[in-house]
Amino acid sequence: MASSGTNPWEVLRPVADAPARTRGRALQEALREAIRAGRLAPGTRLPSSRDLAADLGVSRGLVTEAYEQLTAESYLRSGRGAGTWVGDAVRAAAPRARDRAPRTRDARADFVPGSPDLSLFPRAAWAAAQRAVLAELPHRDLGYPDPRGLPRLRTALAALLTRRRGVAADPERLVVVSGVAQALALLGGALHARGIREVGVEDPGSPPHAELYAAAGLDVVPLPLDGEGLALGPLRRARVRTVVTTPAHQFPTGIAYAPRRRAELLEWARAVDGFVLEDDYDGDFRYDRDPVGALQGLDPERVVYTGSVSKSLAPGLRLGWLLLPEALAEDVTERKRTADLGHPALDQALFARFVEQGDYDRHLRRCGRAYRERRDALVSSLADHFPGTEVSGIAAGLHVIATLPERYGPEGRFLERVARAGVAVRGLEEYQHARGDDDPGLAPSASSTRARVRSDVRPRLVLGYAHLTPGRIRTGVALMARAAGE
Amino acid sequence: MASSGTNPWEVLRPVADAPARTRGRALQEALREAIRAGRLAPGTRLPSSRDLAADLGVSRGLVTEAYEQLTAESYLRSGRGAGTWVGDAVRAAAPRARDRAPRTRDARADFVPGSPDLSLFPRAAWAAAQRAVLAELPHRDLGYPDPRGLPRLRTALAALLTRRRGVAADPERLVVVSGVAQALALLGGALHARGIREVGVEDPGSPPHAELYAAAGLDVVPLPLDGEGLALGPLRRARVRTVVTTPAHQFPTGIAYAPRRRAELLEWARAVDGFVLEDDYDGDFRYDRDPVGALQGLDPERVVYTGSVSKSLAPGLRLGWLLLPEALAEDVTERKRTADLGHPALDQALFARFVEQGDYDRHLRRCGRAYRERRDALVSSLADHFPGTEVSGIAAGLHVIATLPERYGPEGRFLERVARAGVAVRGLEEYQHARGDDDPGLAPSASSTRARVRSDVRPRLVLGYAHLTPGRIRTGVALMARAAGE
Repeated sequence: MASSGTNPWEVLRPVADAPARTRGRALQEALREAIRAGRLAPGTRLPSSRDLAADLGVSRGLVTEAYEQLTAESYLRSGRGAGTWVGDAVRAAAPRARDRAPRTRDARADFVPGSPDLSLFPRAAWAAAQRAVLAELPHRDLGYPDPRGLPRLRTALAALLTRRRGVAADPERLVVVSGVAQALALLGGALHARGIREVGVEDPGSPPHAELYAAAGLDVVPLPLDGEGLALGPLRRARVRTVVTTPAHQFPTGIAYAPRRRAELLEWARAVDGFVLEDDYDGDFRYDRDPVGALQGLDPERVVYTGSVSKSLAPGLRLGWLLLPEALAEDVTERKRTADLGHPALDQALFARFVEQGDYDRHLRRCGRAYRERRDALVSSLADHFPGTEVSGIAAGLHVIATLPERYGPEGRFLERVARAGVAVRGLEEYQHARGDDDPGLAPSASSTRARVRSDVRPRLVLGYAHLTPGRIRTGVALMARAAGE
Repeated sequence: MASSGTNPWEVLRPVADAPARTRGRALQEALREAIRAGRLAPGTRLPSSRDLAADLGVSRGLVTEAYEQLTAESYLRSGRGAGTWVGDAVRAAAPRARDRAPRTRDARADFVPGSPDLSLFPRAAWAAAQRAVLAELPHRDLGYPDPRGLPRLRTALAALLTRRRGVAADPERLVVVSGVAQALALLGGALHARGIREVGVEDPGSPPHAELYAAAGLDVVPLPLDGEGLALGPLRRARVRTVVTTPAHQFPTGIAYAPRRRAELLEWARAVDGFVLEDDYDGDFRYDRDPVGALQGLDPERVVYTGSVSKSLAPGLRLGWLLLPEALAEDVTERKRTADLGHPALDQALFARFVEQGDYDRHLRRCGRAYRERRDALVSSLADHFPGTEVSGIAAGLHVIATLPERYGPEGRFLERVARAGVAVRGLEEYQHARGDDDPGLAPSASSTRARVRSDVRPRLVLGYAHLTPGRIRTGVALMARAAGE
């Protein structure tokens, strides 16, 4: 076999340079790759093992073994004593799927809410917990987990949520999930199985959640808010039996549900024999008074409570929890089992230890101090650069609503200008659910936030601040002011 | 307020002993707890803040604050200047769900397959990778992950799978999942969306997987095997367009699909415009020759490839992968996104590093040596204690099939006897799918394994050995022999 540029066996040449120990494997891989890539076409006859061995300077046994192995894998075919050919069983892969455009990260200032400050992630304490857990975890806990979660974590979480959030937390009713998205997906499936086909959602609210319900076969019915929470009239007229709410700090308006509305919402749920889902997405952060206890504590059989570490530690951990009424606990557990057999055990043990040792409380206190300072920087910057601005939803969470004076409006034009200046910021309107105005039961009432948003010429900005240092906040607000004044 | 045994405020007494710093919070929690537990009934009037403060020996401001907070949470109601009562918004939680019976773990010997040896988990190398990853991970990687998985892990996995398993692995077609269960759930949903309502499965096979398909709305059609893999005639008659297979080491029979059958299966998939799912559940372990390359490498557009670390490292890690044809890649990615937004980022970075540094290969070699020794111990013990036994499926994986001589049969009686002796072991029949014999397209052919299993009086045992030391294997086989001879 002569060595020439057009010799198809040339592609096997590098095999000779592989260390003797791995040469056989290298030959097999080179042959597979050449066949898959089409460089060795189906029907091509291979050299005899003796010739190829001589050509590559390897032992003949190594070539024979490669031919046998690839014949077993259908890459090659062998006739009885009649040589070896490239088989026709192999098809090349189609070109790769188009890459998605990555989210732009080059804004000069980014007020889009949703992320905590990832640089505050407690790496040292987390590393210590990792080390301790790996040293102490019994072997059997590396096996298939309880689909509800490790008992140790459910116990620690129940104590944590009872203490911090005032929920009625029974470890037997807790399911450890990979975040609120999974909580909604599992719950959506369980509701669908009970014949529920629609869920009411807050409007404005968190539009991505609607996709999660759609995946479970549920339609969402956007429901307007008033100053105290979900407006009751539209809720009753909508004839839904389940609503999703953010009572501690409504997303995105930032209002806390009024005590009266909390009680009324539970009365409604009992009357329609339905459920209220309480998404306690940022209930851990409240600055100027104690946190308002969770709605769930008032009626654990009507409220499904869910939360996660996405705002308190990091979304990348994908760890959350779901606290269920008796009526849903078993079905949701089964759905968690068929979805993924349960959450990673080491992660669960790690977070259990993190909570047990008080590390989680320490981290929340540290973040709370930092975020309060950032909120104050944002509020004072807004007062300096946009005098007359009303800021609401400031008592809790990781974002505020800033209603600018009329001279900055309308909202669309304001947002265009600041976007051109490189500031990423969202208006409240972007969080409204798209729906027809002819929706019969749901015509926005004069008192609803929705109606006010629509008719208002004052721009309303949803400003996330937790992920920004006070310095970047001040720079960002100044940039916005400059852009708005041009 | 006098202190007496029947004084309902007595439950608040421990508050006085709390450190001054946490006393306010302790009072609020004690009040909530008493109301939730029904010890303070709805309508109960609370003492004035002055009286309760004096009684507990705390400041009046602290009591006022507690009353205000619990009023905001609807635990209490306040009339205008008319005092404070326990509200009626609170309902107690129903009794907890019945605990499920835990799986018994007290067998004297346990040959049930499915688990690797968890005591071989490479804790030291894992801890080192954890430490390194936490030190090096950019902050942004703690944010919401790419639902397909971290690019770093997909790149490492593609190289690993190409090298070890001969797959055609494009990182853009890989989706990191939480294991084969999630892979099946996601894929089941994507197939359902394409109008596929039935999937063929190997019979005998892995019955729990049928539940996962059922959860996605798919019916399973059990298909018999012959000595070369899925029998083609019944497959064609069944009119399914998708089959799930374990070609490297069929579960549970242990056969490796013949080269010819592999090619025929792909021809079938092209002819029906369907898919073959390749569940490579234990393809990493092959003892007496090189691993047979994955079916996927032969036609990446017809084969969906899935695997996990459940047999190679530990099921509790809940980490796996799915390699998809172009036609399914986007839909499955979307389903992963709505299922849980993606796999935990730290776990992904950790495993990427573990693979990149060669730790995974080292671990597989170490386990491979241990498992080969265990397999040899099992085969020789069976030869000693059950002379005449045929052992098959020994070349790979973590279990074998032992066909005992006729004198030990029938299978049911044998299994009863050894169970009474405290040996956990399963017969091949337990892995057969339940179905009616009048199923038209699927009457078992004379050559099918199923037919042979049914008519055979020789017990066929599915013996997992990987999780047992050679000593425990020998003891277990001896125990079985004693029980069978009694």
